[in-house]
Order: sequence, then structure tokens, then C-alpha cells
Amino acid sequence: MPVVIMDASIYKHVPGGELVNANIIIKDNKIHRITDNQNEVKSFIEENPETEVLSSKDKIVLPGFVNAHTHSPMSVFRNYASDRSLHDWLFNMIIPKEQLLTEEDAYWTSLASQAEMIRSGTCAFADMYFHFESLVRAVRHSGMRANLTVMPLSNKWNEGKRKTVSNAQEAISLFKKYNDNEMITLYTELHSVYLYDIDMIHVNVEVAKELNTGIHIHLHETEKEVDDCLREHNKRPIELLREIGVFTRPVLAAHCVVMNDDDIDILKEDKINVCENISSNLKLVSGIPRIPEMIDKGVNVVLGTDGCASNNNLNMFEEMHISAIVHKNQMKDPTVMPAHKLIEMATKNGYEAIGFKDRAGDVAEGMLADLIMVDISSLHCTPINEVAACIVYSMQASDVDTVIINGRIVMRNKEFVTIDEELVKHKVRTVAKRLGL
Amino acid sequence: MPVVIMDASIYKHVPGGELVNANIIIKDNKIHRITDNQNEVKSFIEENPETEVLSSKDKIVLPGFVNAHTHSPMSVFRNYASDRSLHDWLFNMIIPKEQLLTEEDAYWTSLASQAEMIRSGTCAFADMYFHFESLVRAVRHSGMRANLTVMPLSNKWNEGKRKTVSNAQEAISLFKKYNDNEMITLYTELHSVYLYDIDMIHVNVEVAKELNTGIHIHLHETEKEVDDCLREHNKRPIELLREIGVFTRPVLAAHCVVMNDDDIDILKEDKINVCENISSNLKLVSGIPRIPEMIDKGVNVVLGTDGCASNNNLNMFEEMHISAIVHKNQMKDPTVMPAHKLIEMATKNGYEAIGFKDRAGDVAEGMLADLIMVDISSLHCTPINEVAACIVYSMQASDVDTVIINGRIVMRNKEFVTIDEELVKHKVRTVAKRLGL
Repeated sequence: MPVVIMDASIYKHVPGGELVNANIIIKDNKIHRITDNQNEVKSFIEENPETEVLSSKDKIVLPGFVNAHTHSPMSVFRNYASDRSLHDWLFNMIIPKEQLLTEEDAYWTSLASQAEMIRSGTCAFADMYFHFESLVRAVRHSGMRANLTVMPLSNKWNEGKRKTVSNAQEAISLFKKYNDNEMITLYTELHSVYLYDIDMIHVNVEVAKELNTGIHIHLHETEKEVDDCLREHNKRPIELLREIGVFTRPVLAAHCVVMNDDDIDILKEDKINVCENISSNLKLVSGIPRIPEMIDKGVNVVLGTDGCASNNNLNMFEEMHISAIVHKNQMKDPTVMPAHKLIEMATKNGYEAIGFKDRAGDVAEGMLADLIMVDISSLHCTPINEVAACIVYSMQASDVDTVIINGRIVMRNKEFVTIDEELVKHKVRTVAKRLGL
Repeated sequence: MPVVIMDASIYKHVPGGELVNANIIIKDNKIHRITDNQNEVKSFIEENPETEVLSSKDKIVLPGFVNAHTHSPMSVFRNYASDRSLHDWLFNMIIPKEQLLTEEDAYWTSLASQAEMIRSGTCAFADMYFHFESLVRAVRHSGMRANLTVMPLSNKWNEGKRKTVSNAQEAISLFKKYNDNEMITLYTELHSVYLYDIDMIHVNVEVAKELNTGIHIHLHETEKEVDDCLREHNKRPIELLREIGVFTRPVLAAHCVVMNDDDIDILKEDKINVCENISSNLKLVSGIPRIPEMIDKGVNVVLGTDGCASNNNLNMFEEMHISAIVHKNQMKDPTVMPAHKLIEMATKNGYEAIGFKDRAGDVAEGMLADLIMVDISSLHCTPINEVAACIVYSMQASDVDTVIINGRIVMRNKEFVTIDEELVKHKVRTVAKRLGL
């Protein structure tokens, strides 16, 4: 049904941020009109009597966040085996437990992550995980917009060893069944150069070409990844992938931490979308990516939480905040990464990276209606002073009040519309217990 | 009046954290008993019928946080002139406006900060600001425990230039009037080597000796501070201060970012309490302090937010989180700064640093009753898995439900008992407007 937000304070992407007062009319799945003409709003409501009218007292309206790299079913592993080395954590603790997750488990644990994302203002996310059809089910349940991955390859575990096998026909048929270019867009998954062999990377590119879609990949996350690839192929991963033709497709590349100048040139030349995951990179000691330099060169940089097992939550306010202050210090320049830039990265740049360029990420007429209403009256936001800085440095996930995705209210005054929160939490706790976490 | 917390899950300071189930009896200003004997609790309530009984369903009980370095009246400057260089921000933007703050303004803007701190689980704080008697009034109003500073020196502004003058007798009389060694403890303020001259540092030490109290100082915050001191005195600030005898007193030293090995040895040898302010240090590009090495050497390291004008909030959960992950990456070791260590730094180490060693910071019999009850049932804390990691990496300030300071409930189920939140916010907005922020 249509939604009208009365007397909205609308956040605009300009230096420092800006609030513009107007009424927002949402019809079908789009921002239909933004107007300060009260009569026009009245007429619309009269003509559409089923319209839900929201008050925006003490709130501002922002485009929703895009969490551009996560592993949603990993909510169950949150705070399991923290403060360990990456290798110990991943191979000894996480992967053996991951193998015990059933399709049904993945449905509930992904839904829990989606609930957490909605509660903290995220409207869309890019996911990378197995149990694909459980993720589709969970996304349809929550009402979130999602970029999921089909896997032309699958990792089979054989006597404890991972083995990559071709899965191309299944990936193609899943794509054709579920990709709608709107609520669910599908990329192929190319996990990384260290998990897939050369032949399989070729298969991945061919499938992405056939489906005319993009590729989601982990790229240059650690020095070990780069060093191992150099040893094995005498090339850095980004060079190897370029040679194979991966970057002829739209690419969403998570991490990009270990990057030399030539690597950054390739990011720019091949129009690779870079997803920073600063909390995870710091916590797993992967390093600090050269984000300000990438931005200076014109690379589209976006933000993600990574799986909440290495974060350990799915809070885009934290990602904006930590990214801003870590990179200021990295560059010894407090003027880099100004607050409004982080908000762009978390919103419109994110939509571009997951295949929605110029279709969402700004509160403007004609855009897909992915909006959040955020309470601005808390103590920690008083006084507001500069609004972009307030959002990035002061605001908390708990300030998110109402979330609209694709024109549909999915959280209203902090109450979920689509999700039974207590049931979801109960299910996740049950899975954690069964897995012996 | 006495308080009983029934069936409490009590956080204990052990590796990984631990929850112990028991009932907590708070009497006068102390934790009187922790017991699993229900009959004992019943008898206590019968004998003390005015006892308030709190349920701890879905909550855990933690010692309250200590924000060990802040400038509470600066709430009004939050998000004013962000993303600028330190010099431009401080000297061109902040200081000219600070001069316009009246005594009455400082009362309300400090009270707003105290409300924000209580809401986010902080029970005690160490403050450094002028308008001293306004701060005393605000602390008495909020019910917080505070370490404030008396200034044996004051900075007078004369034709736009700062001038340091002796103020020793006034400081001594303020100390005698307000220091109660319980709700308000007073240290002398020695702002920094760059604002005070040598004679005045001597006066400061003499006053602190006469009053048998400690000294709160900014120390080695930036390279410029160290370089300028080397140029002027041919000594690093920490060497200069040691020579003058500053470290014969208990010292709370904020920042300690620019530290060589010898500096760290002095911290240890002279038992200097170091307050890290990681958000502020990153945002103002001061650098990353060598905290894990200080801790290894046995220095008492604690956490603070700095003024919220350079943070831009007063959220100790963020300080714990950012400190943990930044130092892991700094040391290239994910096992350093484990979560339980951060909780110790934010609680019992903090109490030690502000003069309450072994008197608070642990939920144990005989301790001052500074406790918080935190909701553990949120989506972002589900499942809990390891409790210390959950608190540091997943939990949010908004999970704080109830705050008890010195045995008195100051926030109950997110409702303030001592503070009129709407009035405080109104007052701060009015000051911001008058200052033209």
C-alpha cells in the first residue's frame, strides 16, 4: 500500500550533509513524489485512502544502508572462538562446525542476521554462503533486497579436505529460477583464488557471461593469499584473475587489503567495486586497506560487515565510524574520509556495487523506496550540529525507528512487520546448542 | 533504600568472561551480600521492607564503566566543525566558542554528558574542565561518581592570548570544600606541558602534595607536543615532568600516544595510570598508542572517550571495541587485547586510576555498588556464545537497562531517576543556538 511521510527531514548527499524538509509519497515500490505542497499530499491520500501516513517528528529520513559483503547464516557463530588467529579460528573452530549446519538451520540463522540488519537500518545486502535456497526463502520472508551468489563450483568435503567440483548447470538453473533483478539479484560466487583452481575460475567466468551477471569474490584479503598465489602462479591474485577474464564482468571484491599501486590501478581500470570490511580486517589482523587512495583514483568503494562471526555484529553505523577514523589516522590527515563520504559509501555506492546503479541510495523521486527513519532526538545526537558528522560519529543503530524496503514497511517504530523476532532468536539459540558452541 | 537483584547473572573478570548466578543484596552504598540462599534474601527483604527488588530476566550484571578522561561540558560542541585538522578545529573553531560558555551553560552541558554516560552504562568519570563549581552541581544532580580537577593555575585569556596564572589558594579551598573521597574525588589539573610553564608545574605539584591527592594531565598526545618540548627544554615532556616531581603523586595521564621505550619504562616505574582515548586519537590523527606493550610491562591502562567534541559521543562500548581491534591489527596478533581484558580496563582498572583501587569495579561483596544491568536478549547478542566477546564486540550502549551508582538506582528500565532528559536536551540546544554552532 502507498506510504506518505509527512514533514520529513530528508538527508541529502552534499558535503557536511543537509536536511531538506518536504513530504515523501511512496507508491508501489518507488519514491513517487517529494513535495512541499500540502494540497498535493492531501489529494494523493484522498485518492489512495489505503495510504499509511507516517509522522517524522524527531526523525530524519535517510536512504537505507547496503551491507555489501556478509555471510548471513554465520550469526550463530557470533562470539564463538574470538581472539584467536585467523587460521586457528577458521579451520579448527568455524569450518568443522559449519559442516553441521542444515538447510533449515541456514534459513533461521540467515533470517536472524536479516532481522539484525533491518533493526540497524540496512535495506539491502550482498551475501556469500552455501545453502542457497534457504537464503532465498529467508530473503523472501524478511522482505530485504539481496544480492546472493549462485555457485558454479561447489566445495565438497572429502575426508576432511575441500574439493572443488563443477556445478555450472545447477547454478544456471538456480539463476533462471530466482533472479528477478529487483528483490533478488544473483552474482556468481568465486570465493577466492586459494579455494578455487584455474579451471574452475574459467568455468565461473563463462557462467557469469552466459547469465550476463557479475561476480562476488574475496580479493587480496591477506598477505598469505597474495604470497601463496605468487608462489604458485608467479602472479598476484588480481593479475591472475584479470588474465583469466574475471574483470570483464561486473565484480564485487571484498577486502582488497594487500594492494600495491599497480593493483589499485587495476581496480580503477577494470571498474572493480571494492567492499571494505574494516572491523573484520582489524579483528583478524589482515591489515588496513588503502581506501582513501582508491577513492582518490575513482574506485567505487562500499562498506560491509563481513560475517558477524568475525565482527561480531552487522552494524553499518560502526563500519562507517571505524572506517572514517582509522583512515584519517592512516593518512595522517583529519580531512580525508569526511562524514558525508562515508554515508555515500554505505548507501548509494553500495547499491551501485550490487547492481542498482542510480536506482536506489538517494531519497529522490523515481528511486526504489529503500528508506530508513532515524530518531535524531537522543542524548548522543544532541545537539545535532553538522548532520553528516552526527550520523557517522554519534548515531547508534538503536536510533533506527522505521525501515521501508521496496516501498514496504518492514519495521515500524522498532517493531518488525515481517519477522517474528522471538521465534528467530529461539531458533538460533537452538542451533547454537545443537552445534555445541 | 536497599536493592535486591534476584537471580542475577553476574559477570566475573576471568579469561573469556564468566556468568555466575546468585542474588545480589545492596545496602547503603555497598554490595552487602552475594548469595544463592533464597531464604537469606527473603529474610533480608522482610527485615528491610523498603527494599526495591529488581528482576534480572534477560539481563546480566556488570560493574559500571569508568570513563577516565573526558571534558563533560563539551557535549554542546559535538559534531561542530568535524573533519578538520586538530589546530584548525581547536584554535579556530572550539576555543573561541568555549569562551562564550557561562557557568550556567556548563552546568547543563555537563549534565547532558552525564545523562549520556549513565544511559550507556558509565557509573564514574574523570573530568577536566573549567567552571568547576558547575561541574560539582551537575555531578550532585546526576548522582554519578566523579573525579574532577581543581586548577592551581588558571588560563586567563587576554587579548585573545592564553596566560597562566597561579590560583593555588583557591584550588586548596575548593578541594577542602568539595572533596569527599567518595562521590567526588579531586585531583589537580595540570593540563599539559604546552599550556603551563615550569613554575606553574611546580606550583601544581606542591598543591597536590599539600592536599595528598593526584594529578590529571594530558601527556604525549601528539608528536608536536613532544617535539616542541624537546626544542624548548631539551627533554621529552615525560622526562621534564619526572624531574619536577609530578610523578611523586598519583597521576592519571590521558593519551600517551607518542611513546618510546624509555617513556614506557617511566610509565611503569612511576606507576602512572594511562588513559587511552582511541576514538579521539584516530579522529584527530594523533596516532595509535602502544597499549599492548604498556600492559605487558604492567602499566595500569584504562579507557576514556575524551570530550565528545572529538569522538563524537561518550560510549564506552565503542571505546572497548575499537581499542581491541585496532591493537590486534597494530600488533599483527589477534590474541592480544582479548575481550575480558578490555572489560577490566573499562571497569576495575578505571576505578583504580581515579582513586578507588579495590573499592569498585568488580561485582563482589564489600565493593561500592556501582553496577549496571544490561539486556542480553537482543538480536545482536544472540547467541551469546563467549560472554566477554559478546560484551566487547557485539553489545551496544542501547542494551544498558538499569544503572546503580553508590547503591542508588539512577536509571531504571531505561528511565532516568535523577535527570529530566527532555529538559537537559532543551537546555543544550538552547546553548548551541546562542553560541551560533
